[in-house]
Amino acid sequence: MSLIVQKYGGTSVGSVDRIREVAKRVARTRADGHDVIAVVSAMAGETNRLLKLGRELAERPSEREMDSLASTGEQVTAALLSICLGDMGVPARSLLGDQVGILTDSAFTKARIRAIDGSTLLRTIEHGDVAVVAGFQGVDEQGNITTLGRGGSDTTAVAIAAATRATTCEIYTDVDGVYTADPNVCKNARKISRISYEEMLELASLGAKVLQIRSVEVAMKYAVPVHVRSSFSDAPGTMVVGEEPDFESVVVAGVTCDKSETKLTIRAIPDAPGGSARLFEALAEAHISVDMIVQSFAEQGRAAVTFTVSKSDEVKAREIAEGISRELGAGEVHVDPSLVKVSIVGLGMRSHAGIAARMFRLLADEGIQIMAIATSEIKISVLIDAKYAELAVRVLHDGFGLGEG
Amino acid sequence: MSLIVQKYGGTSVGSVDRIREVAKRVARTRADGHDVIAVVSAMAGETNRLLKLGRELAERPSEREMDSLASTGEQVTAALLSICLGDMGVPARSLLGDQVGILTDSAFTKARIRAIDGSTLLRTIEHGDVAVVAGFQGVDEQGNITTLGRGGSDTTAVAIAAATRATTCEIYTDVDGVYTADPNVCKNARKISRISYEEMLELASLGAKVLQIRSVEVAMKYAVPVHVRSSFSDAPGTMVVGEEPDFESVVVAGVTCDKSETKLTIRAIPDAPGGSARLFEALAEAHISVDMIVQSFAEQGRAAVTFTVSKSDEVKAREIAEGISRELGAGEVHVDPSLVKVSIVGLGMRSHAGIAARMFRLLADEGIQIMAIATSEIKISVLIDAKYAELAVRVLHDGFGLGEG
Repeated sequence: MSLIVQKYGGTSVGSVDRIREVAKRVARTRADGHDVIAVVSAMAGETNRLLKLGRELAERPSEREMDSLASTGEQVTAALLSICLGDMGVPARSLLGDQVGILTDSAFTKARIRAIDGSTLLRTIEHGDVAVVAGFQGVDEQGNITTLGRGGSDTTAVAIAAATRATTCEIYTDVDGVYTADPNVCKNARKISRISYEEMLELASLGAKVLQIRSVEVAMKYAVPVHVRSSFSDAPGTMVVGEEPDFESVVVAGVTCDKSETKLTIRAIPDAPGGSARLFEALAEAHISVDMIVQSFAEQGRAAVTFTVSKSDEVKAREIAEGISRELGAGEVHVDPSLVKVSIVGLGMRSHAGIAARMFRLLADEGIQIMAIATSEIKISVLIDAKYAELAVRVLHDGFGLGEG
Repeated sequence: MSLIVQKYGGTSVGSVDRIREVAKRVARTRADGHDVIAVVSAMAGETNRLLKLGRELAERPSEREMDSLASTGEQVTAALLSICLGDMGVPARSLLGDQVGILTDSAFTKARIRAIDGSTLLRTIEHGDVAVVAGFQGVDEQGNITTLGRGGSDTTAVAIAAATRATTCEIYTDVDGVYTADPNVCKNARKISRISYEEMLELASLGAKVLQIRSVEVAMKYAVPVHVRSSFSDAPGTMVVGEEPDFESVVVAGVTCDKSETKLTIRAIPDAPGGSARLFEALAEAHISVDMIVQSFAEQGRAAVTFTVSKSDEVKAREIAEGISRELGAGEVHVDPSLVKVSIVGLGMRSHAGIAARMFRLLADEGIQIMAIATSEIKISVLIDAKYAELAVRVLHDGFGLGEG
């Protein structure tokens, strides 16, 4: 008898009818001889509805209260799924973050799980019930409700799978797996059947929205096999697992495109020591994450610094950059949101030389200029003009032989 | 510095704008130098919306899950009011049933409060915050969420006022107090400025919907002064308090009309010992509360028994009555839902003779026939044809001099 954790996202539980379909799948899994812990998100649109109410009442609403507000979305789904399972003759109990014992830190709206007490869950299952867990939420040491950030239910599910030593964590979503590229951009994109945690982590960080980054980190840390699949079909999806011997033979596993960043440039910074350090210190103090950085060679004692930040930080970053520019007697600050970061990811890069050169050549052949480059052991990212986004993804996808057929 | 508990019902928090008005009132109360605990209901219509979702998924939904589902309504309001207060510069913290420590029994959907741990509330207030408590909900010994039944937020508020030794419990609602009769029926109905717990208990039990019965019981037990008033105005409402010396001088405090009952009659029950006992035992076994009972004098060894039950129990009560009738060889069962119970309530009845006679005379003068009578120390109820309901209320209201002017 194995234990399976199943996570159902917002569209999978978006209506009473969809909840009924989820209940049927849980019931089938039980009938196949497995114990089930179901982790659920809020019904599609519900989290946004709740947060909008909060924002109508305050420009900067209390984050503690926003978490208590938003967490009701998952509570409703958990109760409804339990009701539906009960009606089908499958005994079920809904459990909230504090009832499970999902202890987090107190960073409201983006809390991190510190510990999960698996005993209530295991007792519920031993009692013969399906445990239906409200995802996305936890409780801090003071008993305040916290939430884990957008996509947090993925992390709830993986962390619970780790805490209960479940066989698999199935993530049911509205796509049927992880693809070599966005199928809306590359018609010949292929569903990846098995991928390593490392690659999945890079893909998730680089714009593939199928899994919350944090959930992949937890899965990797505790070696939880994650199965990303569609709640609308029975087809197998993508298994996210530990590295396997043949994974290296695939040089590039996937191509992603991230449109969430904005580029800022400060011109004519005096090339004295500490000039750009001062800038990045100020950004760090404001909790703004900087992604890519390019410093041009100094001419006449002055250099230009270009960096990218999340679009949501654009206004604050610009203010800071302008302040630093005045302070240093540098030139104007130029903001360019019309760019994208295109990346290729693959474990095979570690052992294959010349991947970067091939990537730049493929883009150059299409006349696509690269504004900045960032690399890690298993990924290469380039910043390019937004108008070439889809073209670049297709060229790289086909150039590295990722397409079907 | 006094502590005031303020309870805001569903219409008082029915929209973002209404919540803002409530926040202003809480802020004003603080500015007047009081500490405040605000107890809130779900936004008007929300509880019904949630329960409807649950009922769409199961004919007999799990009561445990229905409670977890419904309790989110109050959780949302508590967070929203806290957000709004924070935005106004009034520090506030929402607290749920389990966070306050409202311990109840495990009778889901109609739980009763066993104990309230006032320490979290008092700590919150000492810290300078307004405590915003989600009404209607508690938690049982196993940590399950429970709810207190319709109107339960009234009871939450009064019980919290008792646990924290608050000066007053203000119940804000969509009417501006307790009236001598329904103002829709009696144009000259008067707002009662002070009324005793005993009278309020009878009025609430007899159809006045302004307070949950249980909340009046708790207020009486712990001598909590309750102020029923409108959230739409600043006019003082009705104080519900312990008996005061001059209360007895008012013979009749109010007239109520209860349309929630149905009358059943079994004819020709053999007048043997235990015949009607058998009937009422069977009803009690089915958890059906019987209100009024009239047994006619036996003729030819057979009697008729008439009794009233809640309209919601009508179908079940009829089945039981028909079964008993067959068992005893009695006559047919007749069901009549077209009747009402009209009552007069007043502490003064204890010391004034002839009140019942005067009531019956007032009704007889209008040709209104009385089908059954029930009395207590401080109330007299009569069962009459529903078509005379308004007429009877007006006649009694004026006959006992309750009107204005």
